[in-house]
Amino acid sequence: MIVEVVAVGTELLLGQLVNTNAAWLGERLAELGVDCYFQTTVGDNQARIVAALEHALERSDAVVTCGGLGPTQDDITREAVAEVMGVPLIRDPQLLEAVRAAFVYRGRKMPPNNERQADVPRGATAIPQKRGTAPGLICPLRRRGDGSEQVIYVLPGPPGEMKEMFDRAVVPDLLQRAGTRHVIASRTLRTWGIAESTLAERVSPVFDELEKEGAPVTLAFQASGIEGIKIRLTAKAVDVDEAKVVLDAKEAQLRDILGNLIFGIDDETMETAVARLLERANLSIALAESLTGGLAAARIVSVAGASRFFKGSIVCYDTEVKRRLLSVSAPLVVSEEAAKQMAEGVRTVLDADIGLALTGVAGPTPQEDQPPGTVFIGLALPNLPAYAVRLLLPGDRQQVREFAVISALDALRKRLLDT
Amino acid sequence: MIVEVVAVGTELLLGQLVNTNAAWLGERLAELGVDCYFQTTVGDNQARIVAALEHALERSDAVVTCGGLGPTQDDITREAVAEVMGVPLIRDPQLLEAVRAAFVYRGRKMPPNNERQADVPRGATAIPQKRGTAPGLICPLRRRGDGSEQVIYVLPGPPGEMKEMFDRAVVPDLLQRAGTRHVIASRTLRTWGIAESTLAERVSPVFDELEKEGAPVTLAFQASGIEGIKIRLTAKAVDVDEAKVVLDAKEAQLRDILGNLIFGIDDETMETAVARLLERANLSIALAESLTGGLAAARIVSVAGASRFFKGSIVCYDTEVKRRLLSVSAPLVVSEEAAKQMAEGVRTVLDADIGLALTGVAGPTPQEDQPPGTVFIGLALPNLPAYAVRLLLPGDRQQVREFAVISALDALRKRLLDT
Repeated sequence: MIVEVVAVGTELLLGQLVNTNAAWLGERLAELGVDCYFQTTVGDNQARIVAALEHALERSDAVVTCGGLGPTQDDITREAVAEVMGVPLIRDPQLLEAVRAAFVYRGRKMPPNNERQADVPRGATAIPQKRGTAPGLICPLRRRGDGSEQVIYVLPGPPGEMKEMFDRAVVPDLLQRAGTRHVIASRTLRTWGIAESTLAERVSPVFDELEKEGAPVTLAFQASGIEGIKIRLTAKAVDVDEAKVVLDAKEAQLRDILGNLIFGIDDETMETAVARLLERANLSIALAESLTGGLAAARIVSVAGASRFFKGSIVCYDTEVKRRLLSVSAPLVVSEEAAKQMAEGVRTVLDADIGLALTGVAGPTPQEDQPPGTVFIGLALPNLPAYAVRLLLPGDRQQVREFAVISALDALRKRLLDT
Repeated sequence: MIVEVVAVGTELLLGQLVNTNAAWLGERLAELGVDCYFQTTVGDNQARIVAALEHALERSDAVVTCGGLGPTQDDITREAVAEVMGVPLIRDPQLLEAVRAAFVYRGRKMPPNNERQADVPRGATAIPQKRGTAPGLICPLRRRGDGSEQVIYVLPGPPGEMKEMFDRAVVPDLLQRAGTRHVIASRTLRTWGIAESTLAERVSPVFDELEKEGAPVTLAFQASGIEGIKIRLTAKAVDVDEAKVVLDAKEAQLRDILGNLIFGIDDETMETAVARLLERANLSIALAESLTGGLAAARIVSVAGASRFFKGSIVCYDTEVKRRLLSVSAPLVVSEEAAKQMAEGVRTVLDADIGLALTGVAGPTPQEDQPPGTVFIGLALPNLPAYAVRLLLPGDRQQVREFAVISALDALRKRLLDT
């Protein structure tokens, strides 16, 4: 089965909006095992939308459109699709009520323009909205010589609405048309602290086994910069329960191999992983940040409920601040000794159980004869003297900082797992 | 003149990479006054790249491609373009030397695969590289019945290389083909603290005047979230000197109207504007951050040379830290009084000339009966008692934080301008 994506919107052509929908749809279609050879972007012009759809239908079995379902006069995807289908638009009274209800729910009155959102090409099925106002559409059509059916899936442009509708309504319909009677489920294992090539090598037994099994699960790596490397498992199964069993089994196998290199699942970030461990152990934390200048603290406070375990951070950019506030006596402030003293100092000053410290050289020039990318992480655990580790991180000023933050959080995470 | 964009790369179709190049090119083409009706993305498959190019040439005068110029076997844009032109690829010895030199410059030996990057379709002109290794191409071709010339501009995929090459080599060639004898120059004025509708109203006299003049300059607004609202001026002129004169005049007019609402030009950020003012006045600064948890400090240290004026930040997430370290005695910590005490406290504790403080409610729940989005900014200037302002900011947890940071920096900027 071949599917093509047509994104509609003059704001995309003008570059006022980056087409992230196309990337998301491409990823999902690939997971579904569906081929996607072309993506097209077209402006809010009916003749050109029609041309793009017709061209896409010449070379594909199905087309997914996104955008152009709003209430204003330049939102004309519905009209263009009806033209391609050769049918009139019919206003659906039930759908009209649903659009109106979405406004009532928000305590607002529906402007007359929004009535257009209840228009459905004859023969199409509406996809109810769950977030916004514009319903989606499933539009079957027969234009081929052999009389076989094609389909246009019409989705709204706002990413949240588009994604929810795609997963809920398009995926099952698409799989049914593709003649497959299975569901697709994915899980992402997030790792830190291992190179992609090493990771690939270590999990190669799992890969090999998957090949033998005839691959009910596929496995893909995704290098994600300061978010580490993601391992995405995608399972085809007869239902969601079976998919879960299959994914659980593969996750367990990968955890056996990778252990605590896996810091989270799906949307779980490094800071949420650390927060969970701190809360479980009922420990509070304070930070002392030099080169990272508050970035580590900012990541921690992004976790909801951070006030339960986070005391604060002393951003000691100035050497005098390190000496006076944190009692750093080490002659060199970019050093193992300074990192340890910062961790112990902040643990005391902010009255926390754990002190975590970062000092180093963001660049572009060396400091105290240390090259850019040199980072010392100091960690003072409850009732223990601090220790420090030295890292040499790649990248520019900003990357060194961001790598330093996640490395420090990861060092803490591993220690909390061990204790 | 009609131009179309064809982005090449299977990683784009699979969603492993978001197509930011298309948005950037769309914006630039619009500025040049060139129409762009379609953008296509195609994978690394020669037949499909050829199909996409041929289809684009049927409805456009010129095509800009990006991607597929790398050294590996799946980089085949060169081959596809030569096929569309109906000419062979010829290895250019001079270009080969340039590719080799790019490796020598990096202290590396050129792998044999990279020799392909010196291949040029017969009749095409190479665009020398200035950043990477793959040269670009200007490929004229005649396929139309009327014998008129079309052109394919072939650019590399990495955004930095693509953009530099587009501005340097494609823009002049494109303008010449379009029969215009002018240059295009832009300037962005960055504003903070004014709604888009108010901004539009206030600058409407300038707009009206532009209309009368026959618009040698166009003016566009771009709402950019926590980066404020940008006003982009684009001038057409006979040469860069004239463009500069025209842009300078319009900038002066807008500055007369908007005054210090304009915080920067082009890539200048709020933090660089603040840094410049601090350095000019030879003043040091320290921060006290509660709800923003280090974000304000992180923005300040992103300025190169921040150590010359930035002492540090006390991220006092915990109330006890506010009381003990910053001597905050105000009973409510989300209050004007607390913000003032924090600003004065951190000015003293970190021995800075200026103390800037942020306290408030990021959300999602109220705190001390204050609704989410409530933010108090405290500012202690040299030898003066602190004062505080109250803001009510929109958005979720993260947006409230980011708006709070830029609002605080802007409050400081305006005070420094006044003194």
